[in-house]
Amino acid sequence: MTALSGGHIIAGESVATVGQGFFAVNPVSGAKLQPAFCEGSAAEVERAAALAEQDFPTFMQVDKSQRAALLDTIAAELLAVKDALIARAELETALPPARLAGELTRTVNQLKMFARFIETGEHLQPQIVTAMPERQPQPRPDLRMTQVPLGPVAVFGASNFPLAFSVAGGDTAAALAAGCPVIVKGHPAHPGTSELAAQAIASAVRKCALPEGIFALLQGSSHQLGAALVSHPAISAVTFTGSQAAGRELFDLAAARAEPIPLFAEMGSVNPIFMLPQVLQVDAERLAQQFAESVCLGVGQFCTKPGLLFAVQGAELDDFVARLRENFTRLPAGTMLHAGIKQNFTAGLERFLSCPDVSPVSDLRPAPAGNCEVFPTLLQTTAAAFLAQPLLADELFGPAALLVVCDSSAQMQQVAQALKGQLSATVHAAATEEADCRSLFAILQRKAGRLLLNSFPTGVEVCQAMFHGGPYPAATDSRFTSVGHESIRRFLRPVCFQGLPTALLPEELR
Amino acid sequence: MTALSGGHIIAGESVATVGQGFFAVNPVSGAKLQPAFCEGSAAEVERAAALAEQDFPTFMQVDKSQRAALLDTIAAELLAVKDALIARAELETALPPARLAGELTRTVNQLKMFARFIETGEHLQPQIVTAMPERQPQPRPDLRMTQVPLGPVAVFGASNFPLAFSVAGGDTAAALAAGCPVIVKGHPAHPGTSELAAQAIASAVRKCALPEGIFALLQGSSHQLGAALVSHPAISAVTFTGSQAAGRELFDLAAARAEPIPLFAEMGSVNPIFMLPQVLQVDAERLAQQFAESVCLGVGQFCTKPGLLFAVQGAELDDFVARLRENFTRLPAGTMLHAGIKQNFTAGLERFLSCPDVSPVSDLRPAPAGNCEVFPTLLQTTAAAFLAQPLLADELFGPAALLVVCDSSAQMQQVAQALKGQLSATVHAAATEEADCRSLFAILQRKAGRLLLNSFPTGVEVCQAMFHGGPYPAATDSRFTSVGHESIRRFLRPVCFQGLPTALLPEELR
Repeated sequence: MTALSGGHIIAGESVATVGQGFFAVNPVSGAKLQPAFCEGSAAEVERAAALAEQDFPTFMQVDKSQRAALLDTIAAELLAVKDALIARAELETALPPARLAGELTRTVNQLKMFARFIETGEHLQPQIVTAMPERQPQPRPDLRMTQVPLGPVAVFGASNFPLAFSVAGGDTAAALAAGCPVIVKGHPAHPGTSELAAQAIASAVRKCALPEGIFALLQGSSHQLGAALVSHPAISAVTFTGSQAAGRELFDLAAARAEPIPLFAEMGSVNPIFMLPQVLQVDAERLAQQFAESVCLGVGQFCTKPGLLFAVQGAELDDFVARLRENFTRLPAGTMLHAGIKQNFTAGLERFLSCPDVSPVSDLRPAPAGNCEVFPTLLQTTAAAFLAQPLLADELFGPAALLVVCDSSAQMQQVAQALKGQLSATVHAAATEEADCRSLFAILQRKAGRLLLNSFPTGVEVCQAMFHGGPYPAATDSRFTSVGHESIRRFLRPVCFQGLPTALLPEELR
Repeated sequence: MTALSGGHIIAGESVATVGQGFFAVNPVSGAKLQPAFCEGSAAEVERAAALAEQDFPTFMQVDKSQRAALLDTIAAELLAVKDALIARAELETALPPARLAGELTRTVNQLKMFARFIETGEHLQPQIVTAMPERQPQPRPDLRMTQVPLGPVAVFGASNFPLAFSVAGGDTAAALAAGCPVIVKGHPAHPGTSELAAQAIASAVRKCALPEGIFALLQGSSHQLGAALVSHPAISAVTFTGSQAAGRELFDLAAARAEPIPLFAEMGSVNPIFMLPQVLQVDAERLAQQFAESVCLGVGQFCTKPGLLFAVQGAELDDFVARLRENFTRLPAGTMLHAGIKQNFTAGLERFLSCPDVSPVSDLRPAPAGNCEVFPTLLQTTAAAFLAQPLLADELFGPAALLVVCDSSAQMQQVAQALKGQLSATVHAAATEEADCRSLFAILQRKAGRLLLNSFPTGVEVCQAMFHGGPYPAATDSRFTSVGHESIRRFLRPVCFQGLPTALLPEELR
């Protein structure tokens, strides 16, 4: 079962197509990895979408315990191929096995979390208003509301979490939990990992005796494949994690359809951190170390990587900057996920460095030897330069951050006001700095989906109170999260039943 | 206070602009009503939006009891000008005073409902996940989630409910309850009614000592005014009730912004009714009467008016059609809201009648004498003709419906499958017809936001279990309702707080 076919997975079968293929590339060596993978086309989209549409009514009616069993079985099937999955993912992404093992645990736990969640029925938020036949001037009818799945969902796999945000990741888990068939467009940087995960899902669908059209994986690297998927009339919603340019393009396609559909793109965030003066006085050493670690976690390839650090000039900042310099200089080079990401990172760094009043905090090190290797980098500028040059607020995906030195805490609030939408915003403050902290949070509440005090934004807990999303351009719709229990809301819509007898009502409304 | 200025209401003041003005027209007589109203422009949008943006941070932080007091005070201020409001609305809409009095009661009750709802805090759906500092391998942080208002909301007043879906209607009530400033674009068919309602709201804002930028009314009939409002960067969400063409145009504008925003358009629905054979056998008289009444309620100008009636051919249908003919012939002419709506209605009727295999059920009566008067009309076609001519599934806004005769209950299911998105879908069935009923509901669940058994879709209860919305083109986002408690969700977004001490947390998360 763990051999790679290089085909798509449609209706539980590997489907090979003729024509141009593509290869995964080992980011460490730059070598092509076997086998060749098929490039999906409109014909495969048509077939997968027609099957999803055909099997949706059946899947929609399936009992919640059967859907929970599917999620549990997918988790078990993933664990059954754990070694092969991690080995292939390491080859394709250069992420270390320990990180991939942790990510697989998270992937499995997300599936199980949704299984337990849908068993409770809480996600259906049932509302019951009983009839008042004697009410004047009009009787009140019996009204009951529950949630139904939207329809087939297209999931675009992300490159930076080849397991937890890819084929069997959070979006797929949430959509299947909601009762929506899923068609994944695999990320072309890890097609082998994608196929293994898709085989596990297809096997679980079969073991649970569910209709095989409820899941498909389409492989490909072409723009046309994604566009065909988003534009297909059978698709009811789309999830995407990636760049702002690609996310916006897909959003525009989804909005321009004859029947527009929601497209949930999580696109880019610089996750600003504000360090107030007194906390730097008392805790500079720990903060400098943890900040550098947070920036460099996963070679800076987390959507919650802190890319902006705001602090107020003064002696305590000078000391803090010296410690930051030390930490960033000490940190080793890391291998990025693929050549395209590395290229964007180095080009972005150059773009930042070409801006007036931007300088590296430590000496720039010569380019490292490895194919996709990069060094962690900390840049520095002034608040005035930051405000004058909007591109300095852009995301720089990789192990780099920009320190913005403010004249005063008033100027710090001014830069906070100027920020775009973010996934997270963090304040570090001493207990004595509550007033400034409160003012900053009042501003940041409009800018971000998650506000943190005295911690770091990397590390997104998967739970009922998590919100991973935020105002544009962090995400296309600030009202929905892509992590945690509430992420299922993206794929449900309410339906109200008026005057139906018990026998005709869904179980949760009886 | 109840004199009409003809100006916009911005920051609590009447603002007159120079340039082209427009008049309301009495639909009964066709006469212009005084005074002339100002036509809003980009300059007024700019001013109102800047004030809304400026006062949003204050309004966002206002205690829930103060926001509830605002809603209660608006209700009281509306009641204080009840007579003037109803008199002007009657002049501008030709809706009878009893209907308008009922609509005012509903408007007032909606405001009070939201006041009580936000006092409970339930709309904030607080989620608390406490810290587990000892958890391995990673400690769990303290995570708490609540909801915050989106920002300034633009509300497009609807013509068919000059009180309940207009200036002080459900959208305004829900947005203010959420903590969002509101800018209403008044419907040009009832500008006087709009100004009176806006004066009541402005007076309530003043009495509650809230910042006056949180509410504005812009008058106008130009396309540019609406476009400028939807495109203004300070606007965070838009609500619209009206035609599909206008709704889609605004949706496209909202989606094309640099920062796209949600646009909730409730656009058009034919609210199909399926009458199964046995129920017609036992209850033809009552059903024929109630169907005709539902079609003609408010001169057919309800978004939930049943515009399509499906039944299976046979003796019981022949008898039922005879009764329908009688009812539709007996019903008097009614005056529509304005000349544009009447024109669209008569043109639509002609379009339907020019289709092959479409015929009137009763003789068409000569055009009535009154300016905006129309006669109720029932048309008839076959399921085959209906399936072959998509325009027969379009909304015909006004007192008309199309009876579609099916060969069999299988064909009835086939036409159900072919339907577009609807606000509601209804089945009438005898107790013995449960199986057919179940099959139909399984199909209709994907087509409509509300499913009814043995009743009529007109009359939308304002409550916790109501869903007034549906798949496209009934609405632009099938996940949100525009009526009932849940309609507040359109204007809220979640925010997660990580690691904040009690003092810095919003009250509901402590």
